[in-house]
Amino acid sequence: MIRSNAFKSYANRGMDLENDINITNKYYLDKNIGVIYKKPTPIKVVKVIYPKKNSALITEAFYEMPSTTDYNGIYKGKYIDFDAKEIKKSKSFPLHNIHKHQIEHLKKVYEHGGISFLIVRFYINNTTYLLETKELIKFIENEKKSSIPIDYFEVNGRKIKESYTPRTDYLKVIDDLYF
Amino acid sequence: MIRSNAFKSYANRGMDLENDINITNKYYLDKNIGVIYKKPTPIKVVKVIYPKKNSALITEAFYEMPSTTDYNGIYKGKYIDFDAKEIKKSKSFPLHNIHKHQIEHLKKVYEHGGISFLIVRFYINNTTYLLETKELIKFIENEKKSSIPIDYFEVNGRKIKESYTPRTDYLKVIDDLYF
Repeated sequence: MIRSNAFKSYANRGMDLENDINITNKYYLDKNIGVIYKKPTPIKVVKVIYPKKNSALITEAFYEMPSTTDYNGIYKGKYIDFDAKEIKKSKSFPLHNIHKHQIEHLKKVYEHGGISFLIVRFYINNTTYLLETKELIKFIENEKKSSIPIDYFEVNGRKIKESYTPRTDYLKVIDDLYF
Repeated sequence: MIRSNAFKSYANRGMDLENDINITNKYYLDKNIGVIYKKPTPIKVVKVIYPKKNSALITEAFYEMPSTTDYNGIYKGKYIDFDAKEIKKSKSFPLHNIHKHQIEHLKKVYEHGGISFLIVRFYINNTTYLLETKELIKFIENEKKSSIPIDYFEVNGRKIKESYTPRTDYLKVIDDLYF
């Protein structure tokens, strides 16, 4: 969740996964490959004023906890649903990075016949992985660890190819896995 | 788009389509029938302050134009996408009620194999209709009118049954049409 560009550190510039995925989704849309969007950040509006008629200015609001994942849409007739996370320094993905109800959501989508997954980028090896929900669930159910090591992604996930266009080609992995 | 409850007139109380659909979606979710959510309203955040550590307060923000429709999700393995509109007094649905890029979005979803439609409630006859995207496109392409008369919904749409639970059972119509 980007709160404000003012809060982004210099170190993060040019390596923002969210930004890469947005650019990739725009590419998919422009080429008519798939229709996948990031959902708006949920915000609870408390106070609105109307300085001019028909022009609302929000003067008090709060960020809310998202009830689902950040991205969804359609690809080759299938429902696509995922969340994306960056790991700056660690060699593992802490499970507290994703809320319990978001895991439940990914699981529900999977059970209803959709394609759901996590995209996780590790900066320590500069690699972005796609981990299907079934592999995520398998880890949570079988391991008693609070974080998923990078090796688990190496073995049970798929590497996403990154290039100039498309930036983070996760639908290529979906093609390999499902089509 | 609910801007603030304070701006809702007395006349609207108890007959809010958005509210009915949210309750219906919660019912579908609780009964594990489908996983369909309303997307958050897009808001452009301009200023955030931190009165306490880890507690962000938005002090300046604006409503943004949504790039897609309000609702999407999965039902019986199919991608579902729709928008919902209420018509308070008129006998027709003015096309300016739905943005051009939202119609384009519904069309794209339809072309990619998803199920997309409009839900329109007319208060004049207390009836809520589901109009598939192909019927919406047909009207726009063949008629030169700026609004869709209620008769078109009667002939080319489907009535959605409203009751206590589920409130606005639009998936029943989807069952009749697709399954």
